[in-house]
Amino acid sequence: MYILFAENILSVQPLFIQAIDRNTMKNNVTLTHLTTVVTPQGSHRQEEQLAIETPYTVALNDETIGASMVLPVGLAEFGVGFLFGQGYISKPEEVKEVIVCPEGRIAVYADVESTRPKEVIITSGCGGTGKIPREMLEGAFEPLQEYTLPFAELRDFITQAPKISTLGQETHCVHGCGLWAEGEILAYYEDVGRHNAVDKVLGAILLGKAPIRGAIYTTGRLTSDMVLKCARMGIPIVLSRTAPSSLGLAIARQAGLTLGAYARPDRLNVFNAPERIIV
Amino acid sequence: MYILFAENILSVQPLFIQAIDRNTMKNNVTLTHLTTVVTPQGSHRQEEQLAIETPYTVALNDETIGASMVLPVGLAEFGVGFLFGQGYISKPEEVKEVIVCPEGRIAVYADVESTRPKEVIITSGCGGTGKIPREMLEGAFEPLQEYTLPFAELRDFITQAPKISTLGQETHCVHGCGLWAEGEILAYYEDVGRHNAVDKVLGAILLGKAPIRGAIYTTGRLTSDMVLKCARMGIPIVLSRTAPSSLGLAIARQAGLTLGAYARPDRLNVFNAPERIIV
Repeated sequence: MYILFAENILSVQPLFIQAIDRNTMKNNVTLTHLTTVVTPQGSHRQEEQLAIETPYTVALNDETIGASMVLPVGLAEFGVGFLFGQGYISKPEEVKEVIVCPEGRIAVYADVESTRPKEVIITSGCGGTGKIPREMLEGAFEPLQEYTLPFAELRDFITQAPKISTLGQETHCVHGCGLWAEGEILAYYEDVGRHNAVDKVLGAILLGKAPIRGAIYTTGRLTSDMVLKCARMGIPIVLSRTAPSSLGLAIARQAGLTLGAYARPDRLNVFNAPERIIV
Repeated sequence: MYILFAENILSVQPLFIQAIDRNTMKNNVTLTHLTTVVTPQGSHRQEEQLAIETPYTVALNDETIGASMVLPVGLAEFGVGFLFGQGYISKPEEVKEVIVCPEGRIAVYADVESTRPKEVIITSGCGGTGKIPREMLEGAFEPLQEYTLPFAELRDFITQAPKISTLGQETHCVHGCGLWAEGEILAYYEDVGRHNAVDKVLGAILLGKAPIRGAIYTTGRLTSDMVLKCARMGIPIVLSRTAPSSLGLAIARQAGLTLGAYARPDRLNVFNAPERIIV
């Protein structure tokens, strides 16, 4: 497998962003903007950081599959995870090459039979890949990976994850997603869309950068498609800082997946399959 | 215009939800689930409310346009707002009839030339309508409605909005969106997707249930498509409890729209066009 990471030469798409002074942009993922803070006592000026949201097209074997607004980091992982989420690719062995072009295109080459679009349900998801093939909702699930999480490790996971990046605190506009395995965080990605962050983690697994056996933690809500793609990947434990929806829970039940919500260092509210959390 | 509100006979789709005891479902938008709360001291059982997320198809003149996961309330508004967001309809006069079928279909009939799909960008949006025709991102904007918001009214808006519904506190899984005009909240909708909530407000405007001249407040982040559809509707003031993204701001600048973030009763952080907020 050959991956060309062109991220070091990454530039933000000219679309609209050109209206903003390019000099205010730092490290490709945030830019600074002078705002007016209005209070009953009057107003003053203040600098704020914004998360950069920019369109990227994802292509599979030179066929354009879709385009998504993303935080321009972890783009190879995003492209592969996006195609996984949409059901075009399903196994690491299928992925042959990923080329990230700074012009706004992620070209994935994979050993798959078809690039034809599927009938999709657009989901409630906060993310570029907020749609899922209808057939996936109706199928049975493969058995999940065998994995249990000691509560003490959960505490480490939840405590360490927010310390990996300051982008969330700076912009209040990104979601994070991490994979915990072998006693440490082995992957952590952020994006303006909570889905995209999950897609980047799943993409990292498909690219062989992280193991499948582990637990996923996301800052985003666990709606249907978030849970569905983790279940399809075989991930047995999915945790969130916040809540699941009814269909997120229903899919977790169908798949036998451990669904944990409101995760805090000293507390986890398990909606399904609590036996994988070892106290 | 004829609108059939079939919501009183609304039933949740059998898809997956059937795995959950239907008796635990109340008022069509939440269901109760017994969870296991795990702490270092041990675990106990606890009842939690989940927001119901269920698939609905949106059709325009008997042509299926898309399907989305939604919170099943305000569905006529959602259907119309969804089609507006996707660029199929643009004016209230075009909308002729909306039929909400409990089987999971919202049929909109409108005086429009075409129902053909557009080239779309899937956005980072947390919502069923998280995609926008590419052409819209590149076009110029019509002038926005003339409207200013006294800071004292902003305080009322921000204070009153969360009191309209307890669903957010109950489920931690919905976003709210309200329209303020003439000194009061004239529309307020919730959904599992932050986009869907905005679509419902825009749909209410298109259905003549709310005026265009006013300010929108959302609990969700202001990414590109959120700002874009408000700008296309001519809404001059868009406020959020949380942050904008870079492209959300860029669109606001392009359209001349007042973009306010981190809205609190005593504070608003204005990223663009602060002159519409009157201190």
